[in-house]
Amino acid sequence: MHAYRSHTCADLTAANVGENVRLSGWVHRVRDHGGILFIDLRDHYGTTQVLCDPDSPVFAEVEKVRSEWCIRIDGNVKARDPELVNPKLPTGEVEVFVRDIEVLGSAKELPLMVFGDQEYPEETRLRYRYLDLRREKMQTNMKLRSDVVASMRKRMWDKGFREFQTPIITASSPEGARDFLVPSRLHPGKFYALPQAPQQFKQLLMVSGFDKYFQIAPCFRDEDPRADRSPTDFYQLDMEMSFVTQQDVFDTISPVIGGVFEEFGGGRKVDAPADWPQITYADAALKYGSDKPDLRNPIEMQVVSEHFAGSGFAIFAKLLEQDGTEIRAIPAPTGGSRKFCDRMNAFAQKEGLPGMGYIFWRDQGDGMEAAGPLAKNIGPERTEAIRQQLGLGVGDAAFFLGGKPKSFESVAGRARNVIGEELGLTDKDRFAFAWIVDFPIYEKDEETGEIDFEHNPFSMPQGGLEALESDPLSVKGFQYDLACNGYELVSGAIRNHRPEIMFKAFEIAGYGKDEVEKRFGGMVNAFQYGAPPHGGCAAGVDRIVMLLADEDNLRDVMLFPMNQRAEDLMMGAPSEPTSDQLMELSLRVIPQE
Amino acid sequence: MHAYRSHTCADLTAANVGENVRLSGWVHRVRDHGGILFIDLRDHYGTTQVLCDPDSPVFAEVEKVRSEWCIRIDGNVKARDPELVNPKLPTGEVEVFVRDIEVLGSAKELPLMVFGDQEYPEETRLRYRYLDLRREKMQTNMKLRSDVVASMRKRMWDKGFREFQTPIITASSPEGARDFLVPSRLHPGKFYALPQAPQQFKQLLMVSGFDKYFQIAPCFRDEDPRADRSPTDFYQLDMEMSFVTQQDVFDTISPVIGGVFEEFGGGRKVDAPADWPQITYADAALKYGSDKPDLRNPIEMQVVSEHFAGSGFAIFAKLLEQDGTEIRAIPAPTGGSRKFCDRMNAFAQKEGLPGMGYIFWRDQGDGMEAAGPLAKNIGPERTEAIRQQLGLGVGDAAFFLGGKPKSFESVAGRARNVIGEELGLTDKDRFAFAWIVDFPIYEKDEETGEIDFEHNPFSMPQGGLEALESDPLSVKGFQYDLACNGYELVSGAIRNHRPEIMFKAFEIAGYGKDEVEKRFGGMVNAFQYGAPPHGGCAAGVDRIVMLLADEDNLRDVMLFPMNQRAEDLMMGAPSEPTSDQLMELSLRVIPQE
Repeated sequence: MHAYRSHTCADLTAANVGENVRLSGWVHRVRDHGGILFIDLRDHYGTTQVLCDPDSPVFAEVEKVRSEWCIRIDGNVKARDPELVNPKLPTGEVEVFVRDIEVLGSAKELPLMVFGDQEYPEETRLRYRYLDLRREKMQTNMKLRSDVVASMRKRMWDKGFREFQTPIITASSPEGARDFLVPSRLHPGKFYALPQAPQQFKQLLMVSGFDKYFQIAPCFRDEDPRADRSPTDFYQLDMEMSFVTQQDVFDTISPVIGGVFEEFGGGRKVDAPADWPQITYADAALKYGSDKPDLRNPIEMQVVSEHFAGSGFAIFAKLLEQDGTEIRAIPAPTGGSRKFCDRMNAFAQKEGLPGMGYIFWRDQGDGMEAAGPLAKNIGPERTEAIRQQLGLGVGDAAFFLGGKPKSFESVAGRARNVIGEELGLTDKDRFAFAWIVDFPIYEKDEETGEIDFEHNPFSMPQGGLEALESDPLSVKGFQYDLACNGYELVSGAIRNHRPEIMFKAFEIAGYGKDEVEKRFGGMVNAFQYGAPPHGGCAAGVDRIVMLLADEDNLRDVMLFPMNQRAEDLMMGAPSEPTSDQLMELSLRVIPQE
Repeated sequence: MHAYRSHTCADLTAANVGENVRLSGWVHRVRDHGGILFIDLRDHYGTTQVLCDPDSPVFAEVEKVRSEWCIRIDGNVKARDPELVNPKLPTGEVEVFVRDIEVLGSAKELPLMVFGDQEYPEETRLRYRYLDLRREKMQTNMKLRSDVVASMRKRMWDKGFREFQTPIITASSPEGARDFLVPSRLHPGKFYALPQAPQQFKQLLMVSGFDKYFQIAPCFRDEDPRADRSPTDFYQLDMEMSFVTQQDVFDTISPVIGGVFEEFGGGRKVDAPADWPQITYADAALKYGSDKPDLRNPIEMQVVSEHFAGSGFAIFAKLLEQDGTEIRAIPAPTGGSRKFCDRMNAFAQKEGLPGMGYIFWRDQGDGMEAAGPLAKNIGPERTEAIRQQLGLGVGDAAFFLGGKPKSFESVAGRARNVIGEELGLTDKDRFAFAWIVDFPIYEKDEETGEIDFEHNPFSMPQGGLEALESDPLSVKGFQYDLACNGYELVSGAIRNHRPEIMFKAFEIAGYGKDEVEKRFGGMVNAFQYGAPPHGGCAAGVDRIVMLLADEDNLRDVMLFPMNQRAEDLMMGAPSEPTSDQLMELSLRVIPQE
């Protein structure tokens, strides 16, 4: 017989009754029922009930075992009494009578119980991650993560992509965040950097003639602590293709992402990739107040300025006299009560706005009535025009925000989310996707007035060089995101592969030719030797798994995450180097005050 | 029609004749045949012959293109004249008459030609890697690498393994080499390290209950320059299993490795995994003079001390009077000429030995004669006994080395290689595998007399705690390598999962409990909470690809390798940090003298 197991803890069924078997695993829990010891023996695959009565030759030894000891047992498989069969357990028809036991690894007193649902502080969970990972939910999440990544690979291979590993110890790849640096021992005073993304390398692969690349790529950013991100690294499904248009990229990656959600969504509704809308960045801002709208929520905002211009509602009427202002409505079907409207008004105030005007429609017995102070101020005709534009009726409400769109758009977006949630309009059992397209290439810093790249600087401007010579702020890029349920899952672009357009694009953002060559020299040089048009995208693996696992903490879908202070307490990282190590690297640590 | 291509450059056949097509790719070369321009248009998939005569509306533009320009052409597919069909090319039946052209990316003067077989200095190849990678051999090697890694993944999945990504920014994992350090910004003066291997994490995964783990894992070592290794990082197929014996690991990984060689070996003979011998470390040293023997070479060395003890060959006879000495023979079938024997003697002298005695057997017309000075010294009886032991005959030779085995074993091993090569005994079209087992746990430093770990310190000693309490130098580990054609492809062990045996093992090597807890704290703590028996191995991906591609330089199977000074000249790494970056990391560079 094998040294450790003839079967896993998920294998035994009624068909094995009478067999002598060997199992290894962890003591999930021990119960003493009238002198008979019941052990739930657990391994990666399942649980088997093992029991030991005082007649067993090893009763005294079995009596000693405690939760989370790792043991090997030999025993005889018996059928459970019909009334004791556990239909929820694959091994629920049988139990194993212990005849021999070996303790493979005993356990000290546990800082964290594997059995049960008790909550523990995150520090405890991370310090004893090997115990935390034994818990059922974490086993499930990690298996899910592994299976999702495997599925992504298979789907990319099926589409003719090859995976290539790009360097991890390399030069800085300025993606807007802070690099992790790695001191060079052989070149004192010089440093490598860990890549923020394989952006330059994947573009170099296209220049090298490799048509279709992908990689499950680790990305490194030295981020300041924030609850919803890893302070050190994350994984992307990174891909790039040559000789493609934006639509080709969508047609390639949409079924991959959609397929993964279909496969692992656990029955939740997944919009078919063919139905994913393409929404312009401008429309997304207008209708949803976000460039990653949650389309499970059916609410779409609308511009209703005309109904307020010159109206009796002085605040809006005056606002509209200024350039670039607008009034937008958030329709709230079924939100037609003063209580709800007041709560939403309070929400807007908490978010830093003066408030949100509202109208709601009710039936007082003698027909529909528009209620709320706003309705009174603008009068029945304008109120009715608004109602008709928004397609609302009795029992519904609408909220209004005004000013320069930038000043209220994001609050409007959050209000839309809250309204959708509170009114139960947002379908929780659905993954709703949309491509957001036509991002502007540049944005203007409102304070300094300077123009900088809105997204990343490698995107091809729509209209090429000519477009860049007009008003830069009006130039859109072949640049896109995939939004799902309010998250940005994918981001990408058709790249700017023409050196002359690239230099011009950087010049507008204030980067001279020298600086571009210094920062992106590898890529810019390469583009001078026959660069193909190319484009691609990167999908956030951690976030996709988080959505599928229905978790709201990234650390619950990572094996060994850092804590929020970027420490690994289990492994003791970071730690002080030896003075020899510092010497070899020609470094000295500046003492802290 | 698609913006860039209706077909790839490998697609068109006689079936497409008459069609108007669109192709994109690189100008492989241009020839002018009597005023007609012939372009070999190349993409990732193949090459298509494109031609342009002076009647074409775009003749003037086509005339301008040069090698490695990236272009898009529209044209009409025509059948080649029967005598011009190229049967070696999938598209060799047709050619495309250009009617429109668009230059997608022009090229400056090329520092390196993609077309042809010209050799370039490595610095040029690495600086312009994107051109070097366009060359046919590099395209083939990189596709091979990607396909090998994909095949490894599929084979591991098929065996029930899941891939898990372990942390890259972490604590030092002392594997005997030097760590790359990463300064922490949030914790001034503290450093992370890049993992030399995922050793501790994969063991922690087993303690966490994940039964079967694998990973195509990047490993980082700050190595001094050497021609045959990457100075920064390499990839391993890393795996670990719980509740297994050594044989289980062999049974799992052998078909994976064997299968990959079978799949990508290009018809070279691959020994069936079931036939891979298990050779003890001691036997490998004796028979092959190496712990990674090349078994394509049939030569096995033998101990022949008895024939020299007290013989007339004074040097060996005296040697044998000392403790721990031995005489070993290297049989050399078909090596029976004085010329060959003298050459091998000279080889041994070049390797620092006084020389190698030899005997060779020839037929002088009146029967077999043993020639060489050694035969004369020991006389015909002993000479014949040696011949019979080694199973040699007319036309064969044998070489002899004596002393303490450690002093000549590795030279003997190299001599065996040279003999096998020179005599054509080594089968070049074969991959020959062997598991080397029973490595000693410890070795003694001959100079200091101190005992240290021979391999890595995480292996389970055979015989457990009890064995450690006897003579440590006689203790063998459940520790193994897979050798192939003279290379170590895989290395692994059944791990020491028992804290008490681990502390004892380290104590023997001079590490106190405190130091063990400091260096391997994460793992040692974990082992106190119910650790399962486990083991695994890691296979060198780069080396496997190198063998399959029949390359002898690792950099020819890596996309973007560093040069031997650990520099990436294309990307400009390493480079000087800004003073802001150093400030943020609380570091100062010590000026060099």
